This record gives sequence, C-alpha cells and structure tokens, in this order.
Amino acid sequence: MDKFFEDLKVGEVYESVTETLSQDDIIGFAKQFDPQPMHTDPEGAKNSLFGQLVGSGWQSLSSTIRLLVEAKPFGETPLIGVNVDNVRFWKPLLPGATLQAFMEIEELVPSSKPERGYVLVKVTTKADGEVIVTQNWRMLIPTKSHLKK
Amino acid sequence: MDKFFEDLKVGEVYESVTETLSQDDIIGFAKQFDPQPMHTDPEGAKNSLFGQLVGSGWQSLSSTIRLLVEAKPFGETPLIGVNVDNVRFWKPLLPGATLQAFMEIEELVPSSKPERGYVLVKVTTKADGEVIVTQNWRMLIPTKSHLKK
Repeated sequence: MDKFFEDLKVGEVYESVTETLSQDDIIGFAKQFDPQPMHTDPEGAKNSLFGQLVGSGWQSLSSTIRLLVEAKPFGETPLIGVNVDNVRFWKPLLPGATLQAFMEIEELVPSSKPERGYVLVKVTTKADGEVIVTQNWRMLIPTKSHLKK
Repeated sequence: MDKFFEDLKVGEVYESVTETLSQDDIIGFAKQFDPQPMHTDPEGAKNSLFGQLVGSGWQSLSSTIRLLVEAKPFGETPLIGVNVDNVRFWKPLLPGATLQAFMEIEELVPSSKPERGYVLVKVTTKADGEVIVTQNWRMLIPTKSHLKK
C-alpha cells in the first residue's frame, strides 16, 4: 500500500532483504568512487590502518539506500531525503559480509505546507548481524490532503 | 608531499578537478544504488516532486568522495572518514551538471593516542558553480611521531 504522511507511526521499523558483497564487489565500487589502496588492493591494504582490504564507507551507505529503496517502506511513494545526519561508521565493511538495513521512524514533523510532512528515521546497517553504520535521515513525504487537490 | 596531522592548518582549502555527469551517468548510478523513477526514468520523473529527472543525492555524495580522493589533499596519506555530519542537499543534481568539490579544514583535534589526530573538514560540492551539497567529515590522520616508531 502506498503510504503518506498521515499513515506513518513513530516506532515503525522497516527491514530490507540481505545482500552479500564479495571482494570483487568491494574493489569494483572503490575503483569507481573511492580509489584508495585500502579499498582496491588486497596486498597494499595490509599496510593500512585496517591491516586488510575493507570496503569504502560510501559503499556501506550506497548499499543501504538501495536495500531500503527496494524494501519500498512507503509503497510507491518515493524516499526523498533532505538531510542526512550523524553518520557513524562503527565497524569496517569486510569482503564477504552480508548486509541488511533497517529504518525506524523516530519523529513525524508536520510542515506549514499542507501538501507535505517530514519523517525522521534512524537507519541501521548490519553486516553478519553486527551494526556497521548508523545514520539519521530527514525525508519529505506527501500528505493525503495533497492527493485530494 | 605526504601530509600528517602536524602538517595541516585550519583554513586550508583543497579543491578537486571537475567532472560532468550525463543523463546516462545519472540513470546508471540510480539503477545500481537508488532505483526510483525520479532518478531512472525521464518520463516518470515528470510526475515527481522535481518535475524532471534528477540524480540521486547519494550520487552527489559518491562523486564528491571520488573527486576529493583524486585530489590527494594529503598526498599518499589516505582519507579515512570516521563521521559524516550535517549532509544538506541544497539543490538537485541535474543531468549534464559539472561538479567540483572543495574541502576546508575547520578544526584539528589531537588524540590521546599519540599516533593519530582528527581533522574536521567542511565539504562543499558545487554543480555549475552553485552549491548543491554541504557536509562535515571527521577524519583520522596519522601523526609524524607515528612514523618514527
């Protein structure tokens, strides 16, 4: 069912399917977006802070948005982010990790514009069951009254 | 020159080269990471909030990290982000936009661990000269004393 601002409830949690990222996936992403030896070169990565190849934090974030988009938490109503806050990388993304993303509604904020509201969510990404990234999103979502126009 | 914590100064600004993203680039990224009609379907996007195809905000962010990694602001010393805060999407990413990223050192924070310090930067991404995204990064950077071990 397509959801609108009036349909959402604080405390609701949406969860995604899982996705496993191979070493090739990690190197492929990094070559495109974060070409540093710790992310692209298994040998060179041994001399890095991490002591082994790790995925870019931006890959953890990009996988998270895809997993949550595909979960369609609001049906065909799109996820439109306006702010991202408090991104914390708790653990590195390791080759072979199986990711899953969770989105919990923390606050609903009406707007002075009657056609929209804001939904504040906490997003948690786990790898093999352990939290690797948390963040907060502020998203814009249309109201049902908008549809009646 | 490879830079360490002691080499950095508040107020220093690093700038990247530019990169132009075509409509195909925007659709390609979105199919991988943010498959929503406003990002993948020029016709469907006309019915979205934006009234036209726009790039995913996560593409603006992913392009920003690549542009700044390639600028090598600290030489061969890697960019290791630990926090990302205050991501604000000021304008949508439009097909054909030419992006450039800027990183300004705002604060240098010594650590109780002598081998590292933290550098707080403001990151600004412009498209055709107009600011489209701003964010703050907290990065870890090794100290020179670490090298003497």
